[in-house]
Amino acid sequence: MRNINEDTITQAVIASFADCKNARLRTIMTSLAQHLHAFARDVHLTEDEWFKAIEFLTEVGHITDDKRQEFILLSDTLGLSMLVMSQNNRKPANCTEATVFGPFYVEGAPLYSNGDDIANGAKGAPCYVKGQVRGANGKGIPNAQIDVWQSDEEGFYDVQNFGDEGHSVHRARGRLKADAEGYFNFRSILAEAYPIPHDGPVGRMLQAVGRHPWRPAHLHFMIEAPGYERLITHVFREGDKYLDSDVVFGVRSTLIVEWKRHEPGTAPDGRNLDAPWYTLDYDFVLNPLEVHA
Amino acid sequence: MRNINEDTITQAVIASFADCKNARLRTIMTSLAQHLHAFARDVHLTEDEWFKAIEFLTEVGHITDDKRQEFILLSDTLGLSMLVMSQNNRKPANCTEATVFGPFYVEGAPLYSNGDDIANGAKGAPCYVKGQVRGANGKGIPNAQIDVWQSDEEGFYDVQNFGDEGHSVHRARGRLKADAEGYFNFRSILAEAYPIPHDGPVGRMLQAVGRHPWRPAHLHFMIEAPGYERLITHVFREGDKYLDSDVVFGVRSTLIVEWKRHEPGTAPDGRNLDAPWYTLDYDFVLNPLEVHA
Ligand SMILES: [Fe+2]
Ligand SMILES: [Fe+2]
Repeated sequence: MRNINEDTITQAVIASFADCKNARLRTIMTSLAQHLHAFARDVHLTEDEWFKAIEFLTEVGHITDDKRQEFILLSDTLGLSMLVMSQNNRKPANCTEATVFGPFYVEGAPLYSNGDDIANGAKGAPCYVKGQVRGANGKGIPNAQIDVWQSDEEGFYDVQNFGDEGHSVHRARGRLKADAEGYFNFRSILAEAYPIPHDGPVGRMLQAVGRHPWRPAHLHFMIEAPGYERLITHVFREGDKYLDSDVVFGVRSTLIVEWKRHEPGTAPDGRNLDAPWYTLDYDFVLNPLEVHA
Repeated sequence: MRNINEDTITQAVIASFADCKNARLRTIMTSLAQHLHAFARDVHLTEDEWFKAIEFLTEVGHITDDKRQEFILLSDTLGLSMLVMSQNNRKPANCTEATVFGPFYVEGAPLYSNGDDIANGAKGAPCYVKGQVRGANGKGIPNAQIDVWQSDEEGFYDVQNFGDEGHSVHRARGRLKADAEGYFNFRSILAEAYPIPHDGPVGRMLQAVGRHPWRPAHLHFMIEAPGYERLITHVFREGDKYLDSDVVFGVRSTLIVEWKRHEPGTAPDGRNLDAPWYTLDYDFVLNPLEVHA
């Protein structure tokens, strides 16, 4: 510790964690120091670049508040969120894949019944969604709990549109239960592509590296049932121009589905619609929890 | 980009930088993504741990303001600052080594003449400092500009003691010029060990990993002269109990010096002192700037 230089600094930092009583924390801090230092060495980070990074992180911290989490946006846009989600949600090939949670989930969304319109006034072309929640054996999972949320036709979630009241105004989001055979259906609106919030430091980073801030159109699902792993995923809209460049790296080909367009006429719920409407059919296969004998 | 999973995510992130027009930024972002992902994989970072990291960084951002830079403290305590400083300030073996700049430098400190008392009321045992600024050829560098700063006997810098006025109340800091042969001398106070600010998230991190927040006693120098690299360094006090565990990893054995203690009596400036006082002698050797033909 008295001869610290460019070559010995990493070992000195690792040695400083020797008295850490939390073994997991020691493992994490040791690896963090190694990789952080390896990064600085690999690119021969200059003092100016280091200071720009300090200023960038300071801005990320200062724009972050109860409603805006710029550190999560940073993690998302660097693919870290997708990596952490993936390595903690490994599923057998026959199960529905998971993807990123995103920042727009709201706890305690309104409870709906099958057939209800969850749009609740959110603007967009009507869309009728149905599917089944099943186990890997093909059997429906009775009463699976489904959380669903999405943006409106302008690409905004209710929490973005309604400012401080955003967490009490629930539009295009809701909770419902699958029936005794695992079937569910509801009416909502057509999913559209949207940009992540990009008027802050993460937006400037994206611009500096030549990336756009858009996510392809998608519908969020969180599905839970006793005896199964909770599934957090999206369904992505086939044909979206951002499927190959999702700014948060969330797309998986098995989650891409056609939203079928229908001419004005009689909708599945018997209503007569005077504008085009859509249907989306998608089934989910849950992964059984491991049973420890 | 449509089949992103745990194994392909890193390549997808790297590919997303393909349109970055700033080649250096592309290099940095590519390496950052690789090392960040390698870290998350190596420790198999869980979703809970990821979220704790997000919360930690958010706190670091929120405590940071004009006067407190918690991201720099984080970089310092993880050895990143020392690494970046070292790899950008490689010097020949016969030159004085550099060390971390630290957060307590203030531009525009008072100008003093050789022999002056720069303590300006800061509390501590009197200390008479002298030395020479030389080139590698052993010759004194005339009129080298010297910035010096230190904490008081309680471990606080003026900027910490005087709140909002901290940048106009200058105590135990000053600027002076070496003479025509490179010699300088001034009176100040004895350097004492001090803890870095540790009432925030970085302090809690240190506690969690079993580390103390202390720096061994030191005196900061920044020395500039035409034709030479600017030298930013400290002189460390021999015998300090934190020399082997400096929280920011700044110690280099060549920078450790004895502060000599003297019994009450006549000081170098002829004053009669009724309490013990100290002397510190240290010479600095500057590195010539490379001349590009
Ligand atoms: Fe979304
Ligand atoms: Fe200091």
